[in-house]
Amino acid sequence: MSLSEPPVNADGEWEIDERALEAIALGAGVLGTGGGGSPYLGWLRVRRQLRLGRRVAVVRLDDLDPDALVIPTSGIGAPTVGIEKIERGTECLSAVEAIEDLLGRAAAAVMTDEIGGANALEPMLVACHKGIPVVDADGMGRAFPEVQMTSFFIYGLEPYPTALCDEKGNKVLFPRADSAEWLERAARAVTIQMGCHAGMAGPPMSANRAQEVAIPGTVRRAWRLGRAVLEARSGRTDPIAALLDAGPGVALFVGKIVDVDRRTTEGFAKGSVALEGLDSSAGDRCVIEFQNENLVCRVNDEVRATVPDLICVIESETGTPVSTEELRYGSRVTVVCLGAPAELKTDEALDVVGPRAFGLEADYRPL
Amino acid sequence: MSLSEPPVNADGEWEIDERALEAIALGAGVLGTGGGGSPYLGWLRVRRQLRLGRRVAVVRLDDLDPDALVIPTSGIGAPTVGIEKIERGTECLSAVEAIEDLLGRAAAAVMTDEIGGANALEPMLVACHKGIPVVDADGMGRAFPEVQMTSFFIYGLEPYPTALCDEKGNKVLFPRADSAEWLERAARAVTIQMGCHAGMAGPPMSANRAQEVAIPGTVRRAWRLGRAVLEARSGRTDPIAALLDAGPGVALFVGKIVDVDRRTTEGFAKGSVALEGLDSSAGDRCVIEFQNENLVCRVNDEVRATVPDLICVIESETGTPVSTEELRYGSRVTVVCLGAPAELKTDEALDVVGPRAFGLEADYRPL
Repeated sequence: MSLSEPPVNADGEWEIDERALEAIALGAGVLGTGGGGSPYLGWLRVRRQLRLGRRVAVVRLDDLDPDALVIPTSGIGAPTVGIEKIERGTECLSAVEAIEDLLGRAAAAVMTDEIGGANALEPMLVACHKGIPVVDADGMGRAFPEVQMTSFFIYGLEPYPTALCDEKGNKVLFPRADSAEWLERAARAVTIQMGCHAGMAGPPMSANRAQEVAIPGTVRRAWRLGRAVLEARSGRTDPIAALLDAGPGVALFVGKIVDVDRRTTEGFAKGSVALEGLDSSAGDRCVIEFQNENLVCRVNDEVRATVPDLICVIESETGTPVSTEELRYGSRVTVVCLGAPAELKTDEALDVVGPRAFGLEADYRPL
Repeated sequence: MSLSEPPVNADGEWEIDERALEAIALGAGVLGTGGGGSPYLGWLRVRRQLRLGRRVAVVRLDDLDPDALVIPTSGIGAPTVGIEKIERGTECLSAVEAIEDLLGRAAAAVMTDEIGGANALEPMLVACHKGIPVVDADGMGRAFPEVQMTSFFIYGLEPYPTALCDEKGNKVLFPRADSAEWLERAARAVTIQMGCHAGMAGPPMSANRAQEVAIPGTVRRAWRLGRAVLEARSGRTDPIAALLDAGPGVALFVGKIVDVDRRTTEGFAKGSVALEGLDSSAGDRCVIEFQNENLVCRVNDEVRATVPDLICVIESETGTPVSTEELRYGSRVTVVCLGAPAELKTDEALDVVGPRAFGLEADYRPL
C-alpha cells in the first residue's frame, strides 16, 4: 500500500528522485488529455540532470515567503513540431533569465503554466540549472491550447511581462500587453517565426499572488496518477483500475479505435476519434472530438463529458496515456474522465475554457 | 535664387520652420519612389507641434559627440492601413522610450530608418516631445519595404535591441535577434497583431557608429527636392525642371497613365502601371513594375532604370509625387529617375537592395 503524500523534508521540500520523476512524467501525460505534447524528452533531460547530481525540489506555495518571486515557464508551440525539432534545452531557462533581467530580481521558484504533457517537466529543467525549487501548482490543472486559458489570467493576473526565447538566441520580450488574448496572438506569431517551438516565461508573480491565481497541488496529482499506474504495472494488477482510484475518475468507455479523422489546421491538431465497444461497452460506439486536447466524449451520440473535465484516452493494457497525434486504428483503449479542478469550474473560468469557448453546442455538466 | 544649404546656428543646428517642414514632407514623398506611405499626416502632426511652440532641430552626425546615443525610429506596417487606421502619434515615442529604458540611458538624438515617405516625419514628432535633435541621415536614402534593407544592417550593425509599440499600449522588445532577416519576419508578425501599423525603434548606435552605417545628408536632400518644387509652384515655373535640377535627375518618360494593375499580396502592394507617351515621349510606351516602391522602368520594353536608383512618378503639372496606391487612369505624369546614394551601390548593398533581390531578371546599371 503506497502513501498518498510524497515525503517532504523539514523545509517542506519534496526532493524528486528518478522514480518520482517517472511517475510525474506518466501522470502529466494523463493530465494532457490528448494534448500538451509528450513528456518523454523532458523526462530524459531532467533524469540526466539528476544523474549528474543536480537537484529538483518541489515546494508548496505556502512554504514560500509571501513576497517570493515566482516565474511561470513553459514551452509554447505545436507539439507535432516538438517531436522533430528537438529542443536545445535552454529555451525556458533563457526566457526565465530574460524576465529576471527585466525585473532586476532573481526568481525564488519556477512553476509550470500547464501540468498536462511536456510542460510539467520544463520548469524542472530550469530548476536544475538555477538551483531553485518548482512550485506544486500550475495555471491549467491539465493541458489547454492557448495562453489566455490559464487560471492566472482568468483570475486577473496582468498579462505582462513575458519573454520568448528560441534555440538560436532570438529573444522577444512583451513588457506590456493589452490583454491575455493579444498576448496569445502576438506570442503565437513570434513562436511561428521561431520555428513553431519556443520557451516562454512570465508573467512573474509573488507567492502570495500565486495563491490567488494558480491551481495548487497539480504536481502531486500528476505524481499520484503516474505512480498508481507504475505500481499496478509492477504488481501486475489492472492499471486502469489504479488510475480511476487515484484520479479519482470514471471509465466512460472501453473499446477499440476504429476511425481517426485528424488534420492540422489553424495551428491545431483538430479532428475526432471513433471507438467500438468491448467488454462492458460491447455494442456501443464512442466518438471523441479534439482540438489538440480532447474536448467532448459522446457515447451513442449522447454527451458523456466535456471540457474542462479531463477526457483521457488510456491504453487498456498498460495504462499509458495516448495523445491525439498517437491515436491509431486498432488500439485497445479506455476513455477515462477525471474531474477538473474547482478553479476551472467557476462561471468566469467556463467563459474561457468551457465547451462553448471551443465552439461546442453543449453546456458544461460536471462529471 | 535659393540657397542650396539650409541656415544653421552656431551649434550646427538647423531649426525647422513650417516652410522647411513643408518642403521636407514634399521631398520625402519624392524619395518614397511610390512607397513609404504618405507624409501628409506626419506633416500636419509636426506642424501642430511647431505651432504649439515645440522645436525640431536637425543636426549633422559630425555635430554630435562621437559617443552620443542615436536611436533610429520609424513606423512599420502597411501604408494602405496607415491611411485608415490613424496613428495615435505616440507609437514611435513609446518605442524610443522602451529602448532608453532597456539601455538605462537617454537618447541624444533620433534618426529615421527611411527618409522616403511618412517615416521622414516620424522622428521629428519624437524630437518635439523629447526636446532632442533629429540627425540628418537615414538608413535607406529612399524607401524600401523591409527592415533588413537598411544600410545599418548592410554595413554590419547588430540587429538588436529593437522595440515595437502600438496605440493600445502593447509593447514588444527584441533584445536579441539572430539576423536582420529574422527581425524583419518577427517584427512583421507582431506588427500584424498590432493591427498592421506600429512604431519601431532601434537598434541604438553611437554617433560614431552611425557615421559608418548611415546614409548622411538625406533630410537635406528631401528639403532641396521639396523646396525646388514649392519655389517653382510659387514662381509659376516648371516644377519638373526644378526637381531634375535639384535631384539631380533625369526625366525617363512624359506621359499619361493608361493602365494600373495593382494587388495587395503577401503584405505588399504589387503590380505595374503603364503609360502612353506625350510631348517628347509621344508614340512610346512605358511600364513600371512596383512592390510598394517602383522597382524597374521599361520604355518600349527596354530597361531604363532599376532599384536602387529612385524611380519617381511625378504629376507633370504640379510636381506632386504619386504613390503606388494613388496611381490612376488618365493622370499626366513624368517619370523621374534620381541616382541612389553611393552607400546603396556597393556589391554588399546590391545583394540586399539590387534588382535581383526583388526577383527581377536584370543587373543594376547606375543611372
